[in-house]
Amino acid sequence: MNLFDQIQSPTLLLDETKARRNIQRMAQKARAQDIRFRPHFKTHQSAQIGEWFRAEGVKHITVSSLEMAEYFAACGWEDITLALPVNLRQAEGIRSLARRIRLGILVEAPEIATRLAEEIKDPLEVWIKVDSGLGRTGISWQDTARLHAVAQAVRAAPQFHLQGLLTHAGHTYAARNAENVRQIYAESLARMIEARAHLAESGIFGLECSVGDTPGCSLSADLGPVDEIRPGNFVLYDAQMLTLGVCQAEDVAAVLVCPILSCHPERSEVVVYGGAIHLSKDDLHLNGQRIFGLVGLPSMGGWGAPIPGAFVRGLSQEHGILRLPPESLPHFRVGELACIYPAHSCLSVNLMRKYLTLSGQVITTL
Amino acid sequence: MNLFDQIQSPTLLLDETKARRNIQRMAQKARAQDIRFRPHFKTHQSAQIGEWFRAEGVKHITVSSLEMAEYFAACGWEDITLALPVNLRQAEGIRSLARRIRLGILVEAPEIATRLAEEIKDPLEVWIKVDSGLGRTGISWQDTARLHAVAQAVRAAPQFHLQGLLTHAGHTYAARNAENVRQIYAESLARMIEARAHLAESGIFGLECSVGDTPGCSLSADLGPVDEIRPGNFVLYDAQMLTLGVCQAEDVAAVLVCPILSCHPERSEVVVYGGAIHLSKDDLHLNGQRIFGLVGLPSMGGWGAPIPGAFVRGLSQEHGILRLPPESLPHFRVGELACIYPAHSCLSVNLMRKYLTLSGQVITTL
Repeated sequence: MNLFDQIQSPTLLLDETKARRNIQRMAQKARAQDIRFRPHFKTHQSAQIGEWFRAEGVKHITVSSLEMAEYFAACGWEDITLALPVNLRQAEGIRSLARRIRLGILVEAPEIATRLAEEIKDPLEVWIKVDSGLGRTGISWQDTARLHAVAQAVRAAPQFHLQGLLTHAGHTYAARNAENVRQIYAESLARMIEARAHLAESGIFGLECSVGDTPGCSLSADLGPVDEIRPGNFVLYDAQMLTLGVCQAEDVAAVLVCPILSCHPERSEVVVYGGAIHLSKDDLHLNGQRIFGLVGLPSMGGWGAPIPGAFVRGLSQEHGILRLPPESLPHFRVGELACIYPAHSCLSVNLMRKYLTLSGQVITTL
Repeated sequence: MNLFDQIQSPTLLLDETKARRNIQRMAQKARAQDIRFRPHFKTHQSAQIGEWFRAEGVKHITVSSLEMAEYFAACGWEDITLALPVNLRQAEGIRSLARRIRLGILVEAPEIATRLAEEIKDPLEVWIKVDSGLGRTGISWQDTARLHAVAQAVRAAPQFHLQGLLTHAGHTYAARNAENVRQIYAESLARMIEARAHLAESGIFGLECSVGDTPGCSLSADLGPVDEIRPGNFVLYDAQMLTLGVCQAEDVAAVLVCPILSCHPERSEVVVYGGAIHLSKDDLHLNGQRIFGLVGLPSMGGWGAPIPGAFVRGLSQEHGILRLPPESLPHFRVGELACIYPAHSCLSVNLMRKYLTLSGQVITTL
């Protein structure tokens, strides 16, 4: 049976070859520059895909929740950074996990470090979360006094090891173009190095720098004087990365395959079974239009490139509305399939919770 | 132990009293006007909450996927409309379910009705999907020729019973205000009645009209000459419905309770553990600002009203950024909790997959 014949409902199709190539490329880049590669596993969330990283020599990983850390620890990962400002309400789970693996956490306030030290007597790797320009969490890279205070509070707890400074320059996702991504990456890194230098002047030495978002790490040939990178999305990429010029269409390793439910040639649209509960409502702007994905068609070896001018115009809970160039309409018939490049693959994976590979294998996630 | 003390990670808190009151109110309204109440269960997706509807005399329900129809059929629901244009790729599942319950489906093309009749020989209730102004799926209410052709194709299959015309006037969600919602509801209904009259002129008699979106059904005192309403969101309501004036703050029956991770008084913001994978990235516009939810605080009996001027400014995978009025900042401390009124409760429920009630009971979903 043809792979596509068996698809009855929205299905996240994964091209293993492309995903492994994406992993290999980033691993090689880090290795060549002698940088620790600690990929973010929140994108794929899968034990089995984790093994593809291990095959490339990866030993250190990043996750975004305690639950995810526990899942990957159970898969044999022994060095995990939980890259969210530490959640004091999960101290018990953190303590339990820290007894089994080398666990890294993020702290951004002296009083949090102190409170945590009272609750957890087991060894923890502690990173100071630095805001290098995104404006979400972390201490401003310029606020040396506060950085110093946190570093002291962490070092005051003998069970904690102050690993270094960590940032997520996620504003690269909102960059205008590839060159702008490289500028933001370089600027963010320069700010980290500056913060580290100021801390050294104030007597805090020996800190590592950890950075890493997919746009910056994909597009910057020279990753600079960092100790560690933590990109995640690059394993699959998506329509956001493609339109920003971070990857090529052939690098996108997962699409949502959707049955076509209704055709509306008078407005050059079709409606598919595949909506906000499959793709998420994350979006991007393309030619001034807010869109929720790009559109291709099934092909012999997987799926075709995005059709120029075709996009997901709207999403409701289960429906996706595809706007198509009129000449492509004959390829979209009720009962047939459309392949949607998700706007944001991390969120689609989180919703779909499993993949179907081109060889017909089902891969599950957390 | 206090209910809030046990919350360690993002938790969808449900006020059963409010949800039951919302159900009762809508059921009474339909009953008083002698209209069949077929609530959409895609919002709550829960067997147990379904029982609260049954307690109000509900016997007919609407769902948005075959999987959801199978789930509720297994819970004893025997009259279910699958309110998505029929997916030919799921013919086998539809056939199987149609043997066990009274199953309604939606058709909007003559050739689909014909193809379906070849594949399914079991009785099906068929609704013709009409576009009464939303512009998503369905045949235009003005296209009498096509409505007639579909009706004939359905009636040509002896196993199919042509139940009537069905629409979803979901553009009420994009209305400017409550009065505009009522106008759209009335206009949409008038179009359905007109389409039915034109079909009667062309020899197709005896069709029912099914309408129903939460804004229209909540705000229109007189539901008009309809046979059936299918609202769903009203069981929980959410920030979209609240800001549109469809409900009051005390009607919103579910909030996402989120641990506070970091405080940034210099920009009057805090960051919570609770992001796009908990709330969804659905949004609304308030005072010209794109927001992802409203913000309250835990209270003795559940949660407080939305704090004026407080909102969810941004969401990433696990983080939510809350913009707060400066005077409220002292109430938001790291390790404490914030209560977020989701922009769109249906999508939050779909992500969270379980509720915690105020009495500490866990309620699961599909």
